[in-house]
Amino acid sequence: MKMEFSAAQVAAMLGGKVEGDPEIKVWNVARIEEGAPGMLSFLANPKYIQYLYTTESSVVLVNENFVPTAPVKATMIRVPDAYEAFAQLLAVYQEYTNNKVGISSLAFISDDAEYGENCYVGEFAFIGNRVKLGKNVKIYPQVYVGDDAVIGDNTVVYPGVKLYAMTHIGQNCIVHSGAVLGADGFGFAPQADGTYKKIPQIGNVFVGDNVEIGANTTIDRSTMDSTKIHNGVKLDNLIQIAHNVELGENTAIAAQSGVAGSTHLGKNCIVAGQVGISGHLHIADRTTFGAQTGVMGGVNEPGKMLMGSPAYDYKTYLKDTVRQRNIPKLEQRIAELEKKLEILLSK
Amino acid sequence: MKMEFSAAQVAAMLGGKVEGDPEIKVWNVARIEEGAPGMLSFLANPKYIQYLYTTESSVVLVNENFVPTAPVKATMIRVPDAYEAFAQLLAVYQEYTNNKVGISSLAFISDDAEYGENCYVGEFAFIGNRVKLGKNVKIYPQVYVGDDAVIGDNTVVYPGVKLYAMTHIGQNCIVHSGAVLGADGFGFAPQADGTYKKIPQIGNVFVGDNVEIGANTTIDRSTMDSTKIHNGVKLDNLIQIAHNVELGENTAIAAQSGVAGSTHLGKNCIVAGQVGISGHLHIADRTTFGAQTGVMGGVNEPGKMLMGSPAYDYKTYLKDTVRQRNIPKLEQRIAELEKKLEILLSK
Amino acid sequence: MKMEFSAAQVAAMLGGKVEGDPEIKVWNVARIEEGAPGMLSFLANPKYIQYLYTTESSVVLVNENFVPTAPVKATMIRVPDAYEAFAQLLAVYQEYTNNKVGISSLAFISDDAEYGENCYVGEFAFIGNRVKLGKNVKIYPQVYVGDDAVIGDNTVVYPGVKLYAMTHIGQNCIVHSGAVLGADGFGFAPQADGTYKKIPQIGNVFVGDNVEIGANTTIDRSTMDSTKIHNGVKLDNLIQIAHNVELGENTAIAAQSGVAGSTHLGKNCIVAGQVGISGHLHIADRTTFGAQTGVMGGVNEPGKMLMGSPAYDYKTYLKDTVRQRNIPKLEQRIAELEKKLEILLSK
Repeated sequence: MKMEFSAAQVAAMLGGKVEGDPEIKVWNVARIEEGAPGMLSFLANPKYIQYLYTTESSVVLVNENFVPTAPVKATMIRVPDAYEAFAQLLAVYQEYTNNKVGISSLAFISDDAEYGENCYVGEFAFIGNRVKLGKNVKIYPQVYVGDDAVIGDNTVVYPGVKLYAMTHIGQNCIVHSGAVLGADGFGFAPQADGTYKKIPQIGNVFVGDNVEIGANTTIDRSTMDSTKIHNGVKLDNLIQIAHNVELGENTAIAAQSGVAGSTHLGKNCIVAGQVGISGHLHIADRTTFGAQTGVMGGVNEPGKMLMGSPAYDYKTYLKDTVRQRNIPKLEQRIAELEKKLEILLSK
Repeated sequence: MKMEFSAAQVAAMLGGKVEGDPEIKVWNVARIEEGAPGMLSFLANPKYIQYLYTTESSVVLVNENFVPTAPVKATMIRVPDAYEAFAQLLAVYQEYTNNKVGISSLAFISDDAEYGENCYVGEFAFIGNRVKLGKNVKIYPQVYVGDDAVIGDNTVVYPGVKLYAMTHIGQNCIVHSGAVLGADGFGFAPQADGTYKKIPQIGNVFVGDNVEIGANTTIDRSTMDSTKIHNGVKLDNLIQIAHNVELGENTAIAAQSGVAGSTHLGKNCIVAGQVGISGHLHIADRTTFGAQTGVMGGVNEPGKMLMGSPAYDYKTYLKDTVRQRNIPKLEQRIAELEKKLEILLSK
Repeated sequence: MKMEFSAAQVAAMLGGKVEGDPEIKVWNVARIEEGAPGMLSFLANPKYIQYLYTTESSVVLVNENFVPTAPVKATMIRVPDAYEAFAQLLAVYQEYTNNKVGISSLAFISDDAEYGENCYVGEFAFIGNRVKLGKNVKIYPQVYVGDDAVIGDNTVVYPGVKLYAMTHIGQNCIVHSGAVLGADGFGFAPQADGTYKKIPQIGNVFVGDNVEIGANTTIDRSTMDSTKIHNGVKLDNLIQIAHNVELGENTAIAAQSGVAGSTHLGKNCIVAGQVGISGHLHIADRTTFGAQTGVMGGVNEPGKMLMGSPAYDYKTYLKDTVRQRNIPKLEQRIAELEKKLEILLSK
């Protein structure tokens, strides 16, 4: 991404003031303690001030009232809030790297598919029948958008995502590579002879607005109706969301967790990594599950924090894990008691 | 999927009798309590009778002997078994949505590959050298079928599946998007200098008939011979099946579980979600593992149910999880005993 | 892979001596106890000698000093070390099956991308702007190589791998199908209204030399700088490596394990399957974690073996799991004590 900017250009973008060489060029960012020529860094945390005097970065953003106590080799740009300014730059930078527009002649787009202005459809992408893409939708190479799928404005779908037929995704969403939305739910009726008969899965996946879905995460279509991912949900990588599940607004789930069929999570829940949640449960709003928790029962009261397998109160769980390691001491105390009692009884 | 049917057409399909408007159209299905115009619902469970009188669905399947106790707005279709009839409709519907036929001019098919009648090969699919596809095989867009792979009649391979060279899949199978069959098993010989030397993995993956493989599930090729998935096995999403594993007939595994190298599972086993099974074990037929179980030893007796990590008897495990939370009470009882004994001894 | 060799050809390759029919043909390998005509087997372990006299394999490699005690139907090839010779053949065989060369006219390669001699770029692969591929790089069909990515000599990237922009992969690496490198790290700033604001992830993924990455494994790009996978690391399938993680040289991780953000693992660590490692930890060199371990704290001393959740000493953990099942016995002993003490006190 050899996109170079001079210190003066960066300062203009941020409304900052250059102190040093306004013509010096930067083309990427680095932590101040790991700087290199051509890098832009920032200094916000006083703990890192020492690095300002030794950094190899070409440009450093500093708070406007910062007073150095030694010579600074780097060019400084003074801004009201160095951290905020840096975050703003990162966002601009990321936006820039995602500014692809245009329909590749190497994509396949069905005749009856529709798309809004400023869309990108990359090479070897497949857009099925009656698909509707909003404005500014970015479909990267090798994505599959099945028949009758709908994707809202400004949503980005990274390379290789597979959206089965009838999947609905809202606005301002991000779906990362390898995610699969709409595969059949895992539903089979056991037969007398030990085989299984497939239960047709004819619902779909419905994703709201402002949702992010991580790489290789899978969300199954419902048996009927929709598996529902509400607005603002954030899903990390390699997560399993089974059929008929519903995830409430702004619920965030970390990598490798799974939610079994027909379970409903409330709003603003936080699920750490490698958590498993059984099927057909109702989990109240603002519930938090610690890492590797096994959730086998519903949670009625909002705002609870649980851990362990089966899950229970987080603090008690942590105490219990310590207690379980004290069992040898308990055994000793019991043996001691038995011995003393033996003596007493034998008197 | 705007495939509309009149109530009369649905009734004809099911051998049922229309009560209401035979011309009313339906184009999708919904639960009776969540009905809407254009939807078809069914009433089988007496618990849901109340919804029949209020549903917005256009058509409802009911048992032929059902007697309503209030006016019904929806058109009813009377059939011998409403649930069965509904399931039958779903199956037809799903079949219809999967009726693609024809070889896309945008697919790549090696000159020496063969395929039977009524095959579908979608856009950007790759079919390698000497591949053999049976009749009615559906290869969706962006699928990779490596050299010398064989796929049996009526098998459906969804978008983006990757089948390495020499993979064998039987008849009537379904492989969901993102599944990877035939990647190298994880085999390395530790060297004196701390590095690893790769052990070549030159076997393949052999999948029987009537197998379903979930999205983003991975099945590694064996070191030699085959990793074997027998007839009727059902695998959910994000499952790991390591090299040289064998899964017996009709064994079903839920999402995010993993089976390590060279382990053999018997027939009709049931493995819940996030279970881990160590390598080189033999698991008897009809073994059931509860969610998140860690299996570190073999299971000799068929039909057992295990849970916990390390795994042991399911019921005892559940009791033990409660007991472990009673340790504080045990501590109290011991302290009490110590106090009383102290008193006795000091007398 | 109908690549046939005569016994004489195999012997010439290995510097061995034929005993039997030098013209007999083999085209694949099999365990000696599962042999078949056309197969090549080996006999190294004396335990398997019995199978030599009954095997259906056409050719068997034996140690040069081996003396049969009964007639052998198969053609034997005598070599200094039968196991070594067999492994050598497997490596040649695997190399042969991976000898693809040439740029497909159905691939998309940006005008400013560069590639060395003997490269393979398969059908429907996408090579972005300014990408640099070394010599002998194999890019299989449907792979995505994002802008500014770099791939070193002799690296193999299997079908459907997705490398986001700026990903760097060293020499002699293998990346299996469905792996995703460089998706955004899972970073969000909670807002006052319960929603999350995305923290831009503008770093990249940096992979050293001799690294193998399993199918459907995900490695996220860092917030800044690089998520670093050092030389010789071996990753199995379905692993999650979060942003800003660093994996030291020759560290090996089994399937379905996850490492949370900003954690650094040392060199030559061994992580078994389904292990979860929390974020912001430092793990010393040569640490081993047992299967399903939950690592919630750092490890300072090198060479330790841990297990359990939360993780602690491996041997103690295994003893404790047994002890925890003895709680009912402890309860009994306490009850017994209470009864006896009761009697004493009532005297």
